[in-house]
Amino acid sequence: MSAPTKVTPISGFPEFLPAERLVELHFLDVVREVFELHGFAPLETRAVEPVERLLGKGGDADKEVYGIRRLAADDDRDAALGLHFDLTVPFARYVLENAGRLDFPFRRYQVQKVWRGERPQEGRFREFTQADIDVVDVGELAPHFEAEMPLVIAEAFRRLPVGEFRIQVNNRKIPEGFYRGIGISDVATTLRIVDKLDKVGPGPVAEMLIESGASEDQARQVLALASVSSTDLSFVDAVHALGVRHPTLDEGLDALAAVVAAGMEQAPGVLVADLRVARGLDYYTGTVYETQLVGAEAWGSVCSGGRYDSLASDGRTTYPGVGISIGLTRLVHLLVTKRGLTASRSTPAAVLVAVVDEASRETSRRVATALRARGIPCEVAPSAARFGKQIRYADRRGIPFVWFPGAGEGGDQVKDIRSGEQVDADAATWQCPPEDLRPAVVTP
Amino acid sequence: MSAPTKVTPISGFPEFLPAERLVELHFLDVVREVFELHGFAPLETRAVEPVERLLGKGGDADKEVYGIRRLAADDDRDAALGLHFDLTVPFARYVLENAGRLDFPFRRYQVQKVWRGERPQEGRFREFTQADIDVVDVGELAPHFEAEMPLVIAEAFRRLPVGEFRIQVNNRKIPEGFYRGIGISDVATTLRIVDKLDKVGPGPVAEMLIESGASEDQARQVLALASVSSTDLSFVDAVHALGVRHPTLDEGLDALAAVVAAGMEQAPGVLVADLRVARGLDYYTGTVYETQLVGAEAWGSVCSGGRYDSLASDGRTTYPGVGISIGLTRLVHLLVTKRGLTASRSTPAAVLVAVVDEASRETSRRVATALRARGIPCEVAPSAARFGKQIRYADRRGIPFVWFPGAGEGGDQVKDIRSGEQVDADAATWQCPPEDLRPAVVTP
Repeated sequence: MSAPTKVTPISGFPEFLPAERLVELHFLDVVREVFELHGFAPLETRAVEPVERLLGKGGDADKEVYGIRRLAADDDRDAALGLHFDLTVPFARYVLENAGRLDFPFRRYQVQKVWRGERPQEGRFREFTQADIDVVDVGELAPHFEAEMPLVIAEAFRRLPVGEFRIQVNNRKIPEGFYRGIGISDVATTLRIVDKLDKVGPGPVAEMLIESGASEDQARQVLALASVSSTDLSFVDAVHALGVRHPTLDEGLDALAAVVAAGMEQAPGVLVADLRVARGLDYYTGTVYETQLVGAEAWGSVCSGGRYDSLASDGRTTYPGVGISIGLTRLVHLLVTKRGLTASRSTPAAVLVAVVDEASRETSRRVATALRARGIPCEVAPSAARFGKQIRYADRRGIPFVWFPGAGEGGDQVKDIRSGEQVDADAATWQCPPEDLRPAVVTP
Repeated sequence: MSAPTKVTPISGFPEFLPAERLVELHFLDVVREVFELHGFAPLETRAVEPVERLLGKGGDADKEVYGIRRLAADDDRDAALGLHFDLTVPFARYVLENAGRLDFPFRRYQVQKVWRGERPQEGRFREFTQADIDVVDVGELAPHFEAEMPLVIAEAFRRLPVGEFRIQVNNRKIPEGFYRGIGISDVATTLRIVDKLDKVGPGPVAEMLIESGASEDQARQVLALASVSSTDLSFVDAVHALGVRHPTLDEGLDALAAVVAAGMEQAPGVLVADLRVARGLDYYTGTVYETQLVGAEAWGSVCSGGRYDSLASDGRTTYPGVGISIGLTRLVHLLVTKRGLTASRSTPAAVLVAVVDEASRETSRRVATALRARGIPCEVAPSAARFGKQIRYADRRGIPFVWFPGAGEGGDQVKDIRSGEQVDADAATWQCPPEDLRPAVVTP
């Protein structure tokens, strides 16, 4: 088909070149592998939900939804539909819709595109992939799942080229109990103000707290709590030292201590109790998570989540859950643009099988078939150009090996075009070096 | 969050249960593996294109497009955007936009959701996944790629539980040359009528041809050509026997003979020269493909494509291409609903590690970590219920093994809950039977 001549990027809708997409695929493969090793079942939900369900979530979500509409719709019989802006709302609906056909506790992972109609800015996208895990149960959810979530993420991140990272954990009950213990009753407003700490700093936060009705002493105490952080259990004593007691605070400290203790055992140095972490969303009721890459704290959290007592409810049954979500497109995009991550080649092919002349293309094709039968990705040269040109074809794509049928005495030869070394080889037995079998993720 | 109580499926937007999704994932994994073995680079494009680009394709595509719109848009500065209805239009745009950064011939695969605002009916979806491969070049595209496409698909299908299948191939130049050779000048209209043969049969097609201006003899010849089919090169003689000669016809017969000869060599019995295959889309100019599962011809083509002389053009440079596309959601949905395909379990976990009591959960967790370190997907029991209940937990999900820490003399034991056999085992060395490591695709 012919295409209009104007082709331009659309702001907020990122696209990768092939080598960058190979980096993203590596990330997708690793998170999937780790999620499956931990027994999370794969799930996909449709991209659309009724608009009323998307907007029902509260907060300012209504600012972010894309509605969809059949351009040729000749009637209004279609319900108003919108693209999902996260994977939690559709998962909650899926659980309600299929409750009778799922086994609880239900562990699922879900890796899909989501869409948000926000104003695009650097590192903020209107279309991006999220990778979520959640555990949901009926009525009650065992607390050990709250310790499990960040440790699954820690295992995935350890296998990824993201460098050092910290998963910050808090428990909503700690600030809630603490605020009540010092006589603050509007917990939600106080949390929302504390959530701005990273952006505006403690001075302005104290002012906002006082504006919202807190005394100077209360504001000082709120900031003191937010400054508590430890990679071990010492945060408990640090909170006690502030002299505030409340049953909800004690519950929260016990719960967070269990999560941090599991982290100390299984991923030393990765989990940090950080009592500043609030998470903006109202529905978290227990542990909350944020994740920062060391040295790239300005990127903000790359993986967040928490526990919600009521992920879904049909009026009779309540489904509590806990989940965590990797902002995958954003993470990969930042690593590609800021740290120069790329792939060692722009194609899966490890070998280019050269073609001596068009009449012998079938010979080259048979070599390729023999290599593929043993799991070696390869490509047959597109034309029987002179060998120098065929080698350049491989070189431009980063394909490490070029195969020359009939080049040896009574057999083929293969050339490592990086070293120039060329040796006799048989397609039925040649071993591709394991590190060359797949494109590797590299930094320049 | 709380959810509105009404949860209903949306017609045309299919969702799978976990075991069904595992079937779909198996299909996705196999096609990806085969595409990568053949050196196709992975690519994803954004889900949206400018509406004018989507509608510019001609035909009745305008009936099928979903437009998107920010619900909270306070201005009209956003260009009109729509969801893509196939992967060819966005790929053509991507090639134009990135031509300077791609190496040609460019081989890519693309597996993504597409959306069509059609009236839903059985096996027709408004949201579904397509899996495409294409090769695109600058100016000229070598004809051997036209033989390669269906053979890549044949290799993927042979590895999938789809049973016997046939890939029907034709070349647009054959009917075009033949029609001109018998004096029919309106080739496009004639092709569109012949395309209805499967639906309405030869009688009504002859009538429509005559209505469109053909003589009875011309109509008879058109139907005679459409009835030619062979799994070898005999179709060439069968066409010659009809007594029509035209240079374009000869070109088409030579090209199709080359494709069928490659098929006879590489995938005997799979490729069928079928001169009835027309494909509705105007932009095909050479070989065209359709694929049918034997015994399920009523499902129609599950994988189609063809050659286009101008996949994309910026006015100065033309990019010819050839591609083929698997209608993956539709194929899997039909196999699941009509042939009962499902997965052997509803979770990736091969092992459930039992928990003796909550105090020893950490012991069970260490077993799980040891198994995962050797690539064995597993799950720790959600509660320290009595073992009968923990075994039922595994059984309901189809998890084949339950691991009992400390059950043996000085060690652990593992039970195959299908046979009941329970043996001593060490998490550092136990071998999971390879056939149990991943969920298998099975028929009841």
